[in-house]
Amino acid sequence: MKRIHNTLERIKPVNQDLMQQALVKLEGKTKPPGSLGRLEEFACRMVAISGTLEPDTAKKVIFTFAGDHGITDEGVALYPKAVTTQMVFNFLAGGAGVNVLARHVGAEVRVVDVGVDHDFGNLAGVIHRKVARGTRNFARGPAMTRDEMLAAVRVGIDLADQCRVEGINLVGTGEMGIGNTTPSSAIIAAISGKAVREVTHRGTGIDDDALINKIRVIEQGLALNKPDPTDPLDVLAKVGGLEIAAIAGLVLGCAANSIPVVIDGFISTAGALIASELHPNVADYIFAAHQSMEIGHRIMLERIGVEPILDLNLRLGEGTGAALAMSLIEAGVKIINQMASREQAGVTH
Amino acid sequence: MKRIHNTLERIKPVNQDLMQQALVKLEGKTKPPGSLGRLEEFACRMVAISGTLEPDTAKKVIFTFAGDHGITDEGVALYPKAVTTQMVFNFLAGGAGVNVLARHVGAEVRVVDVGVDHDFGNLAGVIHRKVARGTRNFARGPAMTRDEMLAAVRVGIDLADQCRVEGINLVGTGEMGIGNTTPSSAIIAAISGKAVREVTHRGTGIDDDALINKIRVIEQGLALNKPDPTDPLDVLAKVGGLEIAAIAGLVLGCAANSIPVVIDGFISTAGALIASELHPNVADYIFAAHQSMEIGHRIMLERIGVEPILDLNLRLGEGTGAALAMSLIEAGVKIINQMASREQAGVTH
Repeated sequence: MKRIHNTLERIKPVNQDLMQQALVKLEGKTKPPGSLGRLEEFACRMVAISGTLEPDTAKKVIFTFAGDHGITDEGVALYPKAVTTQMVFNFLAGGAGVNVLARHVGAEVRVVDVGVDHDFGNLAGVIHRKVARGTRNFARGPAMTRDEMLAAVRVGIDLADQCRVEGINLVGTGEMGIGNTTPSSAIIAAISGKAVREVTHRGTGIDDDALINKIRVIEQGLALNKPDPTDPLDVLAKVGGLEIAAIAGLVLGCAANSIPVVIDGFISTAGALIASELHPNVADYIFAAHQSMEIGHRIMLERIGVEPILDLNLRLGEGTGAALAMSLIEAGVKIINQMASREQAGVTH
Repeated sequence: MKRIHNTLERIKPVNQDLMQQALVKLEGKTKPPGSLGRLEEFACRMVAISGTLEPDTAKKVIFTFAGDHGITDEGVALYPKAVTTQMVFNFLAGGAGVNVLARHVGAEVRVVDVGVDHDFGNLAGVIHRKVARGTRNFARGPAMTRDEMLAAVRVGIDLADQCRVEGINLVGTGEMGIGNTTPSSAIIAAISGKAVREVTHRGTGIDDDALINKIRVIEQGLALNKPDPTDPLDVLAKVGGLEIAAIAGLVLGCAANSIPVVIDGFISTAGALIASELHPNVADYIFAAHQSMEIGHRIMLERIGVEPILDLNLRLGEGTGAALAMSLIEAGVKIINQMASREQAGVTH
């Protein structure tokens, strides 16, 4: 807990003076004021977060956190748990969606085992930070002990601190964990107080009966565990996931280290929501990659106070949406860094 | 006119059989079916257009057509005509928005003078296809003669034919022409029959009084010239622009040569609309880059029958939105080309 408190104390507001200077710089470019819309917003925010009028975006890393979920015992997911492990091997081979899209945008994918129900030994290519072999079934009791949850949050903080050391310019979040839309819906239901059915959707594609069951299972888990909505870490431990906790830690750590962080879809946003509930300035460091198909996602984004960049009906996770959005944020940064001013170009109006 | 007829006759439906094969191929990838949303749609459409199950996206070109507009005499634009010329020099120097974003996505920018009110001589870096030194003021008479309009359309067709020879995989449209939201609004008003005020907006940022004047000027031009809504080329000649005509030609030519074409914003879409009105299969070759801030844009896109890819409040033109969208289309193509199948990855479900 002390580590998290220390991290929270390091989170400062972003640099508003520099943001104003960025706006002035953009006003001088060879284009009508504001005509590059959100690209200009991305540029200004990158300036304010990174603390320089010429932000760099060369080093981009996506962390894909893998973890399993005891709640899959209740039949909430379309795929069996074994797929989490199989997909970790797919990430390492470079064949998954996030690998393809990260290569496309020039980002590196780092795969973190924070809670997969498989012994990877010392397999190369994986960052080994396993806290447990998956969560427990939260329909029967808490998903994690408080200590397990804290350990998983620390994994994310450690990785963000390491990014600072390495000079990473832009971090993306991603995840793999069969069943993990269920804890994500549980988290937003617990924190927002909304009805479970308003924030629960089809995940990877379950049918109507399975959706009704999923809603019932989440309601049961919330009634049994009684997570305290005013204590985000209590919610996280009781109905969350190990990879969601690590994402919460990564987002906190990025904010503490003044590193912009691009959150992917529904599950990543559940982690970011926990972080945002812990400190009022966290949201200033977050870019929301896209509007997911999951119905609870919009409610999470509104509560954090961020507007999604893309709307492409994505619902894969892994960090796929984050990869695409990172490239658009980078485009905004290149506009402020590379575009000619009217003075440079001899444009008189 | 014969050239346009020949081009129209070359336009065939896209390959639906291959599109079905693309869907099957995507079904076998290591992800839940459909979970990459519109990226999968882009992949399928690229397959169907290019006629191969493994489309290439290596060679990407954005054509930025420059032209001036006599209608600026009526005070419809915020900037003076001279800026069109100044921006051509900015494009050549690589300092404009489209240069920055095209470099970002690995596309080449080709600048075409189809109607700038300046003598560039044989200036290197410009494709010299000037038809006239700008259009005439369509509030006082037709913007172009029918021959001028046809010559400008041929410029676009010629460039598309040349792309086929060069093996260009993906074409983007862009434009520069002070005053050119005015003819674009006139075109959609004439073709759709909608009131001018429903399709006319602030362009680069005119105020309320200037907007009222712009609407009045367009109404006057339509009343005077009486463009025939059932003859898209008549509309184009009477109230269009030289760069808009060239874009119409480029879109027609791309369709005829089975080259996918990404249309940028409001002005590019006006050109694409003319092309689409001329042949029912043209829309199948078009990707709409983004939803512009111009209120008439949505009406154009709906009439063509294409859904915008991005919504980032862009209103710069030049091909800036096309550049960004090209990268997302390329991402979809890389998904179908590079992502592992479940069989390859040993993913059992």
